Amino acid sequence: MTYNKITGDILAQFTNIVGNDAILTSPAEIADYSHDETEDLVYYPEVVVKPQTVEQVSQLMKICNEQLIPVTPRGAGTGLAGGALAVNGGLMISMERFNHILDIDEQNLQATVEPGVITELFMNAVAEKGLLYPVDPASKGSCFIGGNVANCSGGPRVVKYGTIREYVLNLEVVLPTGEVIWTGANTLKYASGYNLTQLLIGSEGTLGIVTKIVTKLIPRPTLDALMLASFPSNEDACAAVSAIFRAGVVPSGLEFMERRGIEWVIEHDGITFDLKDGIEAFLLIEADGTNQEVIFADCEKINEVLEQHNCQDVLFADTSAQKEELWRIRRTMAVSVKSNSIYKEEDTVVPRAALPKLIKGIKEIGAKYGFESVCYGHAGDGNLHVNIIKAGMSDDDWNNKLKDGITEVFELTVALGGTLSGEHGIGLVQKGFMHLKYTPIHFAIWKGIKAIFDPNGILNPGKIF
Amino acid sequence: MTYNKITGDILAQFTNIVGNDAILTSPAEIADYSHDETEDLVYYPEVVVKPQTVEQVSQLMKICNEQLIPVTPRGAGTGLAGGALAVNGGLMISMERFNHILDIDEQNLQATVEPGVITELFMNAVAEKGLLYPVDPASKGSCFIGGNVANCSGGPRVVKYGTIREYVLNLEVVLPTGEVIWTGANTLKYASGYNLTQLLIGSEGTLGIVTKIVTKLIPRPTLDALMLASFPSNEDACAAVSAIFRAGVVPSGLEFMERRGIEWVIEHDGITFDLKDGIEAFLLIEADGTNQEVIFADCEKINEVLEQHNCQDVLFADTSAQKEELWRIRRTMAVSVKSNSIYKEEDTVVPRAALPKLIKGIKEIGAKYGFESVCYGHAGDGNLHVNIIKAGMSDDDWNNKLKDGITEVFELTVALGGTLSGEHGIGLVQKGFMHLKYTPIHFAIWKGIKAIFDPNGILNPGKIF
Repeated sequence: MTYNKITGDILAQFTNIVGNDAILTSPAEIADYSHDETEDLVYYPEVVVKPQTVEQVSQLMKICNEQLIPVTPRGAGTGLAGGALAVNGGLMISMERFNHILDIDEQNLQATVEPGVITELFMNAVAEKGLLYPVDPASKGSCFIGGNVANCSGGPRVVKYGTIREYVLNLEVVLPTGEVIWTGANTLKYASGYNLTQLLIGSEGTLGIVTKIVTKLIPRPTLDALMLASFPSNEDACAAVSAIFRAGVVPSGLEFMERRGIEWVIEHDGITFDLKDGIEAFLLIEADGTNQEVIFADCEKINEVLEQHNCQDVLFADTSAQKEELWRIRRTMAVSVKSNSIYKEEDTVVPRAALPKLIKGIKEIGAKYGFESVCYGHAGDGNLHVNIIKAGMSDDDWNNKLKDGITEVFELTVALGGTLSGEHGIGLVQKGFMHLKYTPIHFAIWKGIKAIFDPNGILNPGKIF
Repeated sequence: MTYNKITGDILAQFTNIVGNDAILTSPAEIADYSHDETEDLVYYPEVVVKPQTVEQVSQLMKICNEQLIPVTPRGAGTGLAGGALAVNGGLMISMERFNHILDIDEQNLQATVEPGVITELFMNAVAEKGLLYPVDPASKGSCFIGGNVANCSGGPRVVKYGTIREYVLNLEVVLPTGEVIWTGANTLKYASGYNLTQLLIGSEGTLGIVTKIVTKLIPRPTLDALMLASFPSNEDACAAVSAIFRAGVVPSGLEFMERRGIEWVIEHDGITFDLKDGIEAFLLIEADGTNQEVIFADCEKINEVLEQHNCQDVLFADTSAQKEELWRIRRTMAVSVKSNSIYKEEDTVVPRAALPKLIKGIKEIGAKYGFESVCYGHAGDGNLHVNIIKAGMSDDDWNNKLKDGITEVFELTVALGGTLSGEHGIGLVQKGFMHLKYTPIHFAIWKGIKAIFDPNGILNPGKIF
């Protein structure tokens, strides 16, 4: 695809649409928009605009579509797969001024929200009304809900409450041609033609720019319990995971953490934690609900399972402060690990009982290629984040040989019935591995769908495939 | 689209693929395959085949694709929108011999099942292992799970447990070209390219023929309570629905039934029921879980809400037999109503708080056009089945004027934020109304998607759009 540069004339048109105060053109101004949270990748767009109405987005898209200018939609820039990087330059449309919660409908338990709302602010706003929007990625304090939709983002509560697919009911979308549609209806059920809402979720900003999101809300659980279980091996911890469900309990959080991850958090965040010898892995397990007895009963069942799986110690959080501290360890782990070294993060997902084999295999592959890895993630969903640390690796090994190691990690993931990404998306950095799982038929279908929505290929080009 | 007839030569090829005992050609043999449960519509396919392997389906599709022979995939024929009718003749591929539960994986809480398995048999098989597959349409005793996937079917438990979209993880599909793909991965989370699993769900057999289904399973609730609440008006009953959720309770069933529906069940099924004067509507409400106290507490909260909404009487089912009897009233209502008159069934769905306006409007439209309607459905989801009864209507009114009345019903549904079908699909009989909700842009996208999967337009033509 050949794209055009943004000329002075086109820039004037953009300025005319969004106003002088909502357009950035100098590299200094644009620097913040040149990267997301993916490794150390940097790509500068030519121009950044910050529209605040659907009409403005539509007008911008029409011009770019006619002039063949690549467009990169941008949320908060917290993505981990390079989905929001302007790899072809062009125009970046930042959705940061679409930051309004338009409606929290307490009669229907639905909300209408703009894509630039920070996920946690939205969660708090509905919580104030006794309601729950449970899709809370680790980056909830900074990521946008629009980015969550684009990447089919998850978080620890997916294990009980389901993915973002189960909460997004309807989307207002500006298509690459500038046309505006609602993808579906504001209904809990939908059997009225191919489901475009579901197609847009997880499409990583390649099919359209979301301008309004209608979500389902549910009654908020009022109580919870949190425990941290320690194990002598990764395999023991992972094996306990599927046994917990088999015992009839669906926890509201079931997170795996390697010892090495905890060590890095202790080291870099100054968290006090008594890390005992002989412990290699932890499960952070939350049970929530509206009845204390039921939660206790769930915890007892979980405890029995843990005992059967060689669990060495269970720490119950007694206070809100203790709970917050334990969750903080899990939430800051990514940042702690990454602050210390160049890294690559993979987002493997497998059927949950395959976790022991996955983690064992990852360590073996690491030994073969000489990379260190720190693993943690949403074990209840079979979703393991694998942080590959450069540490002592030579630049040559890191730049030239690591790809083969990652290929083996993904080959193992696929062989175990899994896929490349559970909740981070494919974006720029994983697309080179997609052929490990998908056939030319899949690629042909995806490209066909892309061409329907975006005949000129201007929207977020170079992502996914 | 111009299609070809099945010649003797092609028939020989079909026979060669599936064998003599799996091919039907005479009208007498085919009669059962000429209709589904949609009104009184009849369309004969030229030939019916009953393959039993994915390779056979693939070979059949390749021939039909080359020879431009229309193909209608067929489940159990319980559909209510004409999706399984062979409107262009051609080949019908009945999936009835794909009737094996291939695996119930108790470690991962997943199952792999063929599409011709009767939904209730599957539910029972997983229940024996203490697990729940909760998608149970009223026709669960006869419908196939493959048809449920095709139509994005629901049922009473969707209100708590979610739609079939939340349970189907991966599909093996034969494309119209004969190629075979798995749509995704056997994982609970998925952020790896456009989600083809979700695209196939609800595509009504127009994009591919599903040959294997991987589903999620969850721990089975062990206890439940069931109550029947009576109201002096439809509006009172419907208003109580959203208030129940607002009180923090998510029932496992929340069904609405009009008085007229109960009367027809009493009349046609010989059910004993004390139908009091002054009662116009009922809510059948189930709460389930694993703890009796919690269920009682939920029932108490529900009761408080009912009292605030002019509920006249609440009947608690004390025994399993009583529960079964109450559910039977709800489940047989469709058959009872339809056994008595020519009818048309609409499957309206709106945000749940809009139900009072919807039902009031339907009655007003009925009065205007002279049709009687019996309404019931999954009120907790805002999903109302509207049975329009011919009764005393003249043939002329029924054949020529009713369409305007139905148009008004759908216009109202759309104006209330809803759409044409919540769980039955669009199929043949609702496609003429799709323009009431969707724009030419939607149609262009849908048709584009269809053309990617089915460039020759041979698979289930004439459905949805």
